[in-house]
Amino acid sequence: MTMHVERFRIGFQDTDSTARVYFTSYVRWFDIAFIEYLRRNNVVFDSVGGLVQNGERLDKTLVIGEYGCRIMKPSKYDDLVEVHVNIRETTNKVVTVDFVLKDAGDGEELASGWIKYVCVSLENKRSAEFPKMLKEMFERGRR
Amino acid sequence: MTMHVERFRIGFQDTDSTARVYFTSYVRWFDIAFIEYLRRNNVVFDSVGGLVQNGERLDKTLVIGEYGCRIMKPSKYDDLVEVHVNIRETTNKVVTVDFVLKDAGDGEELASGWIKYVCVSLENKRSAEFPKMLKEMFERGRR
Amino acid sequence: MTMHVERFRIGFQDTDSTARVYFTSYVRWFDIAFIEYLRRNNVVFDSVGGLVQNGERLDKTLVIGEYGCRIMKPSKYDDLVEVHVNIRETTNKVVTVDFVLKDAGDGEELASGWIKYVCVSLENKRSAEFPKMLKEMFERGRR
Amino acid sequence: MTMHVERFRIGFQDTDSTARVYFTSYVRWFDIAFIEYLRRNNVVFDSVGGLVQNGERLDKTLVIGEYGCRIMKPSKYDDLVEVHVNIRETTNKVVTVDFVLKDAGDGEELASGWIKYVCVSLENKRSAEFPKMLKEMFERGRR
Repeated sequence: MTMHVERFRIGFQDTDSTARVYFTSYVRWFDIAFIEYLRRNNVVFDSVGGLVQNGERLDKTLVIGEYGCRIMKPSKYDDLVEVHVNIRETTNKVVTVDFVLKDAGDGEELASGWIKYVCVSLENKRSAEFPKMLKEMFERGRR
Repeated sequence: MTMHVERFRIGFQDTDSTARVYFTSYVRWFDIAFIEYLRRNNVVFDSVGGLVQNGERLDKTLVIGEYGCRIMKPSKYDDLVEVHVNIRETTNKVVTVDFVLKDAGDGEELASGWIKYVCVSLENKRSAEFPKMLKEMFERGRR
Repeated sequence: MTMHVERFRIGFQDTDSTARVYFTSYVRWFDIAFIEYLRRNNVVFDSVGGLVQNGERLDKTLVIGEYGCRIMKPSKYDDLVEVHVNIRETTNKVVTVDFVLKDAGDGEELASGWIKYVCVSLENKRSAEFPKMLKEMFERGRR
Repeated sequence: MTMHVERFRIGFQDTDSTARVYFTSYVRWFDIAFIEYLRRNNVVFDSVGGLVQNGERLDKTLVIGEYGCRIMKPSKYDDLVEVHVNIRETTNKVVTVDFVLKDAGDGEELASGWIKYVCVSLENKRSAEFPKMLKEMFERGRR
């Protein structure tokens, strides 16, 4: 069962002159889908990338440390697609999130990928342990 | 009265390191809003930029000939904004569309702009007269 | 005579599935060309959009207030193009810069446009008068 | 020894409101650097993504099948960076290319990544064996 699903309509801005989706668009959609999953759990980024949980600004935030993508079938302009979001794994400082892009009509898998979000301290910009509530949230996501 | 309204959530991909919206994002949103207005009127672009009306591919399409934008107040990450779409003017070959970007909460005007869409023949790529149904649609939009 | 020329190789990231340049790419190139003109005159933006002249951070900066673009002839992937930069007009608070996009081979005009850069105070974010050296630089550019 | 190096100046279009580089910019630079490596070997893409070797259009092309990126140290606006390109591995149908992003000044490693380019037939869009000259070129790149 998928933890969170986000739907996108592919626009010209997502494509290139090969008439397919430009390859970086996939991971952009993945990250947006993760951000919407966070929002549904009352966690949002502020306007400069800080993290706000239940209205309170944290002294830590999440930054992208690694990401990857595999394209199985090319997508094209105006296709309606869905990103399925799932937590793969959580350590004390890093959450690895898996994504699957599916055709919103027939559910066919079009691409998949993952992003590692690293918890960093706003003070010294170094990796830091997740706030307890955030770690619990990611662990719930794995069930 | 606005002809069509399209809502956007501003993402990191729309911003730059000045902590404001990157300036080209505005006209991108304007064009996407126009595309959604067309869709509501059963006119869609196919995957390579051709035009399909009520399921039938036309031998003409629309291309962007000119555009402009005025930024009144900077927008930032996570703001919820609305693009209001209105037809300003239609000639036999060119439709000029006006756009206003508003804060989705308080309705404050944040930016405005316009795009001139030119009808071109798919055969010789030159400007051509709008198909009758398309011209009528744009004229209805002006009322 | 052109004040500054900047050359670009059109990449897939600049195009869309119509096999032409995506329309917002033009003004992006225009702004980059203006930034390189500034650099040649020892004026650079710092990493968060402040302005540094001859190594000294100013208490004012430039933000984009308006822009426009006219596309005369479609450009495509791998074309080598040049942006020609010229100052059109300078007031105490606003500089209007004109741009022409040309084929780097035969010099044919492909697109043209303009951007209004507004001087704003970093302190109160309101429009402010250009620092003297900056205004003189823009006036020299007009000759 | 690096097979090919491509230099980039980080612009506002590459950044986001966190004041760092937007995460997808890295793989975009990687792909552009690979395209320039190909060009230096007389292989270019045509305007719709076909492949041209020494002036002759091939009946096969390269598409991106997988990619990944690891960000070691955040980069910011106006940084001058270099992408180092190396062939990791070539099979009959897939070439895996490694990339390292370095500070153009002190050579510090900022990010690394890889892209798998798959040879596909233009006729049936399925994976196909590399043309002999292309495979030899990639194998030379590994030495």
